Amino acid sequence: MTTLPCFLRRRRLAVSLSVVLALAGALAQAPAASAPPAQQKTQVPGYYRMMLGQFEVTALYDGHVDLDTKIFRYSSPREVQRLLARMFVASTPGMQTAVNAYLIHTGGNLVLVDTGTAACFGSALGHVAQNLRAAGYEPAQVDTVLLTHLHPDHACGLVADGKPVFANATVYVDQADAAYWLDEAAAARAPQDAQAVFALARAAVAPYQAAGRLRAYGAGDTLVPGVTAVPEHGHTPGHSGYLFRSGGQGMLVWGDVVHSHAVQFRRPEVAMAFDVDSRQAVSARKAILAQAARGKLWVAGAHLPFPGIGHVRAEGHGYVWVPVEYGPVRTDR
Amino acid sequence: MTTLPCFLRRRRLAVSLSVVLALAGALAQAPAASAPPAQQKTQVPGYYRMMLGQFEVTALYDGHVDLDTKIFRYSSPREVQRLLARMFVASTPGMQTAVNAYLIHTGGNLVLVDTGTAACFGSALGHVAQNLRAAGYEPAQVDTVLLTHLHPDHACGLVADGKPVFANATVYVDQADAAYWLDEAAAARAPQDAQAVFALARAAVAPYQAAGRLRAYGAGDTLVPGVTAVPEHGHTPGHSGYLFRSGGQGMLVWGDVVHSHAVQFRRPEVAMAFDVDSRQAVSARKAILAQAARGKLWVAGAHLPFPGIGHVRAEGHGYVWVPVEYGPVRTDR
Repeated sequence: MTTLPCFLRRRRLAVSLSVVLALAGALAQAPAASAPPAQQKTQVPGYYRMMLGQFEVTALYDGHVDLDTKIFRYSSPREVQRLLARMFVASTPGMQTAVNAYLIHTGGNLVLVDTGTAACFGSALGHVAQNLRAAGYEPAQVDTVLLTHLHPDHACGLVADGKPVFANATVYVDQADAAYWLDEAAAARAPQDAQAVFALARAAVAPYQAAGRLRAYGAGDTLVPGVTAVPEHGHTPGHSGYLFRSGGQGMLVWGDVVHSHAVQFRRPEVAMAFDVDSRQAVSARKAILAQAARGKLWVAGAHLPFPGIGHVRAEGHGYVWVPVEYGPVRTDR
Repeated sequence: MTTLPCFLRRRRLAVSLSVVLALAGALAQAPAASAPPAQQKTQVPGYYRMMLGQFEVTALYDGHVDLDTKIFRYSSPREVQRLLARMFVASTPGMQTAVNAYLIHTGGNLVLVDTGTAACFGSALGHVAQNLRAAGYEPAQVDTVLLTHLHPDHACGLVADGKPVFANATVYVDQADAAYWLDEAAAARAPQDAQAVFALARAAVAPYQAAGRLRAYGAGDTLVPGVTAVPEHGHTPGHSGYLFRSGGQGMLVWGDVVHSHAVQFRRPEVAMAFDVDSRQAVSARKAILAQAARGKLWVAGAHLPFPGIGHVRAEGHGYVWVPVEYGPVRTDR
């Protein structure tokens, strides 16, 4: 607690006319004109840090995509526009949507949850490795990569030019996602324009698989100490969050439970075109939101406004997103 | 708009048991243990940038204070705790409260609104000049400083070791604040423990005053092109916001209209011990919140969670704070 005792009393003093007149007179003199330097127009690096008990959590910004409002399901265009407007989200040239990854240093392990897009979606994204370096680490120091699912905006960052970016890491993914996305025969039966997604998933994990460092886990399998997989199947068949626990605190790194903070906290029943099974995705979202609100869990979301860390509060028939406050890395609370 | 056509069809493929079994088998092999590097525990630099029409706005973080919950007026401790809890604001060791300043490059002028605390409140604050440099500018390039009021967390940053930090700037302050805080005779009549605040205000502006570069403005006076002073008197006698307008967009840099986002958006009638006239401060807050919500103005607040930039939405009997989304510096919307 910082006390500012000098502020704590109300002062009512007479305005001194002499001070006003002396200073106001100076307004007549125009300041000397000198042109300012060029506008910088650069942005602060895309990382943000906080402690979760003894765990150090670093949010990493991969970039953004501008999504079309037509991707929503089970809602009208009119309702979508109303929900976006109340959160001041622009819909032209598209809804700005973040892609985030999370680096958690547990003391024993350096764990990366999701890896961003690398070169898969153009230059507005693909900055996870760069921001990981800006945050003081090297990709080779990551020993564990946990994938929430095998969509390319989560898995493409595993590789650069066909080589593993996280050269010393073991990669974990739910066995249902591995089975769905990595089976070449199944991919061959998919429509032509969907086959690219399957191919990207296979290419992303290929060097890890070849080195025997890809692990498809099932219910009850242990990952690394302090981390539990949380099934959120629906968005993809094995879509999973990861619950980190330290010092009595919990953070659920939930992947794609919410793609639009403006729409889906208030209306969890609204789905996205990207869902493999949108009905199942809605059920998973409702269950996870209820669990996060009830447990007052920290949440970290891959597509929530960066850093995508915050809490969920139940309100009315839906929920409210309460983002973390920017501040120093604190260990005193 | 980025289209991801490959995602837009729902796939229902049979799970390939062979893939699952092959990968799950790998789980039996434990990864080689190697200790990760030390936790970094550093935070990203404290600046954030956005465009407002042709104006470039850079939020600058000075630091934080942990405020006692006893500073609220016209509310019960029980209500305060409830309002803080619903926004996940910790009250021990105090409510983390940001101190922000704003650098606006209008094309013609490099304008700094408020200057932070410098050395007045300890090492958890005083970082405006450092973050201004991190954002690509030098203090000597600032040509205009607009003070929202003369409290030390807004004015102390004007000086370092008695020398002006913004060596080429003209400093503007509302004449009612100048008259109140800079009158030595009036300060001498104040209680002993309040005199320090008056002394800090005088010391902060002294070198600018000596150089003829302190301007006390009145209603209707022009400041710099594209900027209008907005009276918000009450928190201090001349407390003022600054409305920046460019390309059809407006941003009100409002100073201390809200000290606690968790409490005062929902309950604008709750005041703070720091107010010189808390009844007048409540009236000003209500008027400014209504104006910001009605006009859908961008708002930048000195004590809102950094970067302190966002919008205000009317809801129920109060308001909701909608923070800006982190993203690249965009000029396409």
